[in-house]
Amino acid sequence: MNTVRVPASRSYEVKIGSGLLQSLGAEAARITKGRVLVVTDENVAPLYLAAAYRSLHEAGLGVCTISLPAGEATKSPEYYLKLLNLLAEKQFTRSDLLVALGGGVIGDLTGFVAATYLRGVPLIQVPTTLLSMVDSSVGGKTAIDLPTGKNLVGAFYQPSLVLCDIDSLNTLPEEVFSDGCAEVIKTAILFDRELFAHLQERGKDFDREYVISACVRHKRDVVCADEFDRGERQKLNLGHTIAHGIEKESGYLISHGRAVAAGTAMMARAYCKEKAAVVALLQQFNLPVTTEFSAPTLAIAALADKKRSGDTVTLVVPHAIGDCRLEKVPVSDLEAVIQRGY
Amino acid sequence: MNTVRVPASRSYEVKIGSGLLQSLGAEAARITKGRVLVVTDENVAPLYLAAAYRSLHEAGLGVCTISLPAGEATKSPEYYLKLLNLLAEKQFTRSDLLVALGGGVIGDLTGFVAATYLRGVPLIQVPTTLLSMVDSSVGGKTAIDLPTGKNLVGAFYQPSLVLCDIDSLNTLPEEVFSDGCAEVIKTAILFDRELFAHLQERGKDFDREYVISACVRHKRDVVCADEFDRGERQKLNLGHTIAHGIEKESGYLISHGRAVAAGTAMMARAYCKEKAAVVALLQQFNLPVTTEFSAPTLAIAALADKKRSGDTVTLVVPHAIGDCRLEKVPVSDLEAVIQRGY
Repeated sequence: MNTVRVPASRSYEVKIGSGLLQSLGAEAARITKGRVLVVTDENVAPLYLAAAYRSLHEAGLGVCTISLPAGEATKSPEYYLKLLNLLAEKQFTRSDLLVALGGGVIGDLTGFVAATYLRGVPLIQVPTTLLSMVDSSVGGKTAIDLPTGKNLVGAFYQPSLVLCDIDSLNTLPEEVFSDGCAEVIKTAILFDRELFAHLQERGKDFDREYVISACVRHKRDVVCADEFDRGERQKLNLGHTIAHGIEKESGYLISHGRAVAAGTAMMARAYCKEKAAVVALLQQFNLPVTTEFSAPTLAIAALADKKRSGDTVTLVVPHAIGDCRLEKVPVSDLEAVIQRGY
Repeated sequence: MNTVRVPASRSYEVKIGSGLLQSLGAEAARITKGRVLVVTDENVAPLYLAAAYRSLHEAGLGVCTISLPAGEATKSPEYYLKLLNLLAEKQFTRSDLLVALGGGVIGDLTGFVAATYLRGVPLIQVPTTLLSMVDSSVGGKTAIDLPTGKNLVGAFYQPSLVLCDIDSLNTLPEEVFSDGCAEVIKTAILFDRELFAHLQERGKDFDREYVISACVRHKRDVVCADEFDRGERQKLNLGHTIAHGIEKESGYLISHGRAVAAGTAMMARAYCKEKAAVVALLQQFNLPVTTEFSAPTLAIAALADKKRSGDTVTLVVPHAIGDCRLEKVPVSDLEAVIQRGY
């Protein structure tokens, strides 16, 4: 097992290893003597909810559970209010605990509930997808979507603990696993030639504990330098401006990971001197490297995104592997940049 | 004009004086070069929205305004979502600005929107009631209500600036002004014998700039020692456990200020060696000093409040003027404590 300490405004640990779900109860009992609400979705519940419940129950905690529909549509104001009202009706207090058991949707939604119910209650993240282990469970960003766009409402809120049980990756559908690989490759391009080489050599059979730990450490370093997302942290958005446009234009039928893969490939073609290696690695992982949507369409969609700041939009420009920089582009130039990426 | 600097996690100033609404535009222009959404209510709009608009417009800013129904019912998930969707539809960015022009309802609601839209956009509070000047505009607590209770959802979020224009108190209905006096008297009991004496001597004709500045300074001192409400800050809740019960049982027909007055008088009778002076001062300000609701009723209502922590509830016990202490009381003893207050 690896442990990565995240010294944010509230310091916490990310534990990465095999069999960690069994330790959930003991870990939770160090945070609360009260009650626990486990939030999960209908894909994850049949696989892992019983084990989570048993571990918490055996640790002497009172346990409530709720299973929500799987998918992005659950990250909505409606489910946000549903969870808040559930906690209020059960009279949960600040001494009680929330557990998010699932992927990024469950983590982001439950995180925003934890951030705002009674202005903040303790939270353990138990990410069950590769994407949520390397991305959304680290850094304290929580969010829900609005009809006009993704992640438009949220808070910065650090969990008390993150448990990444790599065994839960065994049950991931192939395509969901690939989604996570896109973020892993993105991290390698941003920060880590050694990780990039490991992925080239091993393909999808990479060393999970090593790779996830490396991604978590890189994200930790960026997040701690810029907890509230005013500067360097925006680097993590490599490929994301285009990706958000692709997701939105597809009606969210194209997943975040696949959209990020396409967005990253397009930014590499537009700017990167190692574009061939980037595109080849994404293809090795069966990830898309282009999109059917046009540059004008994607540019318009991107301008509704929150990374826009007045008349400019900040892009993460990959000049080479390990050399990516934040660059401000006038709103009027965005379409031309995207056009170079096909 | 007095200026109180609040060195919270984000440092900001509270300005207190006459004619400050005319400076809103110049102040806003120091924070944003973009657009401003002014949120107000239907009582305040006819009195002050035109002046606010003119000041912002003359400073060269783009101005949108929205006027919501007056009253506690507006501090709801529905209006929270309405404002979020409005900002998203107008494509407000993190470079734009929100202005809360009104009392505590508008301040709390707009504050929670500012805290969570794009995970935080700049906010100027322009409180127009005595209560919101001395209480809800300082300290960064934002909130909305749920059907099960008040202020159950929110965030800690500091504004960029607070402008308290004491001229706006001239148009306050007598009863709304009295509401604010209850919080002023509460502050005097907690921290300040000199302020208590000034109020005894001057009654409702007190020196507004002096009194509001004193209350803001006391609140600032407590808040900065405990920004996230884990300890000493709870002192500000003198009378509030009973008050929340009174408000709730009245279906929120009894105002917060009048409920706090009754709650403070009851806590004084139960514990304070200067109970006679406390009760007399509240009566001098035409504030209630008891309630029609029974101790069992109030105890049950109090237990749904978020100040409950497991099996105990923390009360602010006024032993004397300037000597109030936090004391934990078992949930089972709460009814007997309240009973002593009639």
